[in-house]
Amino acid sequence: MTRLTINNINPNVVEAKYAVRGELAVKSEEYRAKIRKGEAKDLPFDQVISANIGNPQQLDQKPITFFRQVLSLLENPLLLEKKEVLIEHLGYKPDVIERAQSLLSHVGNVGAYSASAGVPAIKESIAKFLEERDGFPADPSHIYLSGGASSGVNTLLNIICAGPKTGILVPIPQYPLYTASLSVLNATCVPYYLDEHANWGTSLETIKEAYDKAKKDGIDVRAIVIINPGNPTGASLSEEDVSSVIKFADQEDLVVMADEVYQTNVFKGTFHSFRGALHKLQDENPGQYKSVELASLHSVSKGMVGECGHRGGYFELIGFEPEVEAEIYKFVSITLCAPVIGQCLVELMVNPPKKGDPSYDLYSQEYTGIFEGLKKRAFALYDAFQHMEGVECGEPQGSMYLFPTIKLPAKAVEAAKKEGREADEFYCLRMLEATGVCVVPGSGFGQKEGSLHFRTTFLAPGTEWVGSIQKFHKEFMEEFR
Amino acid sequence: MTRLTINNINPNVVEAKYAVRGELAVKSEEYRAKIRKGEAKDLPFDQVISANIGNPQQLDQKPITFFRQVLSLLENPLLLEKKEVLIEHLGYKPDVIERAQSLLSHVGNVGAYSASAGVPAIKESIAKFLEERDGFPADPSHIYLSGGASSGVNTLLNIICAGPKTGILVPIPQYPLYTASLSVLNATCVPYYLDEHANWGTSLETIKEAYDKAKKDGIDVRAIVIINPGNPTGASLSEEDVSSVIKFADQEDLVVMADEVYQTNVFKGTFHSFRGALHKLQDENPGQYKSVELASLHSVSKGMVGECGHRGGYFELIGFEPEVEAEIYKFVSITLCAPVIGQCLVELMVNPPKKGDPSYDLYSQEYTGIFEGLKKRAFALYDAFQHMEGVECGEPQGSMYLFPTIKLPAKAVEAAKKEGREADEFYCLRMLEATGVCVVPGSGFGQKEGSLHFRTTFLAPGTEWVGSIQKFHKEFMEEFR
Repeated sequence: MTRLTINNINPNVVEAKYAVRGELAVKSEEYRAKIRKGEAKDLPFDQVISANIGNPQQLDQKPITFFRQVLSLLENPLLLEKKEVLIEHLGYKPDVIERAQSLLSHVGNVGAYSASAGVPAIKESIAKFLEERDGFPADPSHIYLSGGASSGVNTLLNIICAGPKTGILVPIPQYPLYTASLSVLNATCVPYYLDEHANWGTSLETIKEAYDKAKKDGIDVRAIVIINPGNPTGASLSEEDVSSVIKFADQEDLVVMADEVYQTNVFKGTFHSFRGALHKLQDENPGQYKSVELASLHSVSKGMVGECGHRGGYFELIGFEPEVEAEIYKFVSITLCAPVIGQCLVELMVNPPKKGDPSYDLYSQEYTGIFEGLKKRAFALYDAFQHMEGVECGEPQGSMYLFPTIKLPAKAVEAAKKEGREADEFYCLRMLEATGVCVVPGSGFGQKEGSLHFRTTFLAPGTEWVGSIQKFHKEFMEEFR
Repeated sequence: MTRLTINNINPNVVEAKYAVRGELAVKSEEYRAKIRKGEAKDLPFDQVISANIGNPQQLDQKPITFFRQVLSLLENPLLLEKKEVLIEHLGYKPDVIERAQSLLSHVGNVGAYSASAGVPAIKESIAKFLEERDGFPADPSHIYLSGGASSGVNTLLNIICAGPKTGILVPIPQYPLYTASLSVLNATCVPYYLDEHANWGTSLETIKEAYDKAKKDGIDVRAIVIINPGNPTGASLSEEDVSSVIKFADQEDLVVMADEVYQTNVFKGTFHSFRGALHKLQDENPGQYKSVELASLHSVSKGMVGECGHRGGYFELIGFEPEVEAEIYKFVSITLCAPVIGQCLVELMVNPPKKGDPSYDLYSQEYTGIFEGLKKRAFALYDAFQHMEGVECGEPQGSMYLFPTIKLPAKAVEAAKKEGREADEFYCLRMLEATGVCVVPGSGFGQKEGSLHFRTTFLAPGTEWVGSIQKFHKEFMEEFR
């Protein structure tokens, strides 16, 4: 008998990689703790900027007032007995009170487990939102509340993956949740590269090549993951790209997993949902596309909501076999239910104050303010990259990230090798040590052999940190020239 | 290529069983919906009693005022700008405001992701609680916040289980989270039976037998799960039972997984924590028991807190290899973090108002009221079982459940067989149809071959439903005599 060691525990977990919260993130937290304790006199910076995680409320973003007012009443319903105080002294508008009452009438109590797939009335509200967004009705019975989109991805991959021969098409670069989850499930990631020269769009040809190669290797390719708008790329897909993926999935009987958590973070063009595109294809081609299986995911963590800490999200299923859906139900029921306050926040996100409602003006002003702020910072960062030697970056399109290419001098690549690191990891570590700015190396998301990138959010306020990246970059390039 | 079907998806998920939210629970929700819509005239009852899930706040239990007042301020920190209104008009005590301010100073914003393993200050608070509870210090760096205890169990089993040859000793009867998770992970459940005739205590002899048999079958037994107080049994283990399990684990190098979520639901004797017993053994036997690996879990869902919907919990690790713990950290980081409001509720649970604090009197009164209410209802239900033919039940000891044995007539067993059901499932289904009371058949938790049980919570208010069970039982016994 032996105790647990790195050599006998689950090898699939050991195999999994998750750079977003890896070594750099840990190191940045150590710096932050040092600064807090006043032990940072030897550091060349006086604050840590976490540009490694899309975590808006850790940085500048304020929560939307309407949402939080309602949540405060859900947490303490006794406040509803003092409506005049709420209205006259605390500035709560009548629609805040009405929404809290209505949610409580359906939820009962946010301290109780809900039904496994979520509160029925909240699922109905989501269905209404989907219908309004896409112009096609949705069935609440195929909607599942989840603890953020991550937990939904975990559920879906647990159902789809039946061992090492199961392959899932995953975009590269990708949010490493996908590769990490596939490692843990001992399934096969079938990478397809996004086209950097076409604004990180999908190339059907590349997808087909990856698919054919995997098939030839005996892999049972079952699903294709699309992240739109993209993470880490920021790409916002055209309707044509979306439709072509659906057509391919239809042809090859692939489940489409549409990660659409950044659907409101779009600066360029419009968001095209997979469910909208699928319904349109079905309408325009009677009898066709009827058997496409689509799972689309959304979350309260991103967008102008930015409520990561509340772990709210949902996924909708279209075209799944009832027996398969029953297994999905069973799987979510083992984890009991998504956090109920997070579920309520999903309801508020999909059903915000409407024009004419007492809370509408403030809501609208806050929402637009956040949107414009993000856009402004995205372009400021983009502009800075234009002036950095060896850095190339497409114009911001969507999501919360920029993902520039970096061309580093050969000496820097050598120095990295000596430390046993990827060159972009070496660069990002140096950046953290010099500036306190934490970004994620491209190798954490996957990238074409020989190319180097890093991902940075544009959530942090101010421009000082952007200047410090520029200064660092210049010095780095000179050091290793 | 084929679409997803029940025959090609993950067979380990298909294999998993989870009766607590299975057919009976679904049927009971259908009845509830019917009643709500006024379509229940043909039903012989006018309300559904969910005695199948330990979900206190779905039933009678009110949340603790102090907790919810603090949470309301965490959700809407703008309220902290109106302290006089909170105090003078809303009855918030100064310690509510102080706690909210202190939590916010550490958390920042409940809408932001926290560190992967949880908010550092909350881990410190838990460590202090553990030290006060057990008299031995705890190290916050080995504490991990989780989304309820379930998510902690999922993390730990994902790390420990390395395939079908990994065996985990699981008590039978057990909360089916364990067997379901082991199915999903394709690991082997090594059942050991609890001793009904010794108040459902652990028998070391039985554990050894199960262990030896599994070893002989080539199973690498790595851990033993203990649920104390017991679910579904309600058993509260003696210090001797706890120590003997630790000694056995030490001898055989087993990880001890101590599920202690019902630690405050104890009516008889005292709760003996595994970490307390381990430290005591270490102190009393210098140099011994140093390599025992213990993971103990707790939750805000049970006890007098009863905040299931908030998905808050934690686990503490003792004696794990640093490299193994690093993998646990990576695993939890893939799921980002536990719900932050749930984390704050953990802090409130482990650090409630103290004597002399402005909120103490109300807190204490509410806490005691809930405790006494549960105890009273447990004994009322126990008394009812004493008067039911063929029903045997030990005196209530702890947790939220009674788990009586039922002896059913041969004709009932036959009738069940005809329907393709276990006899206890048949009985529970009939009970639901006749009374609207939903309980869980013993077969959902595992039980000795030939014995039959059901699990019921004693959370529902009133005594009418208990009467209706008695009436149903009498009629059932007569029908099948």
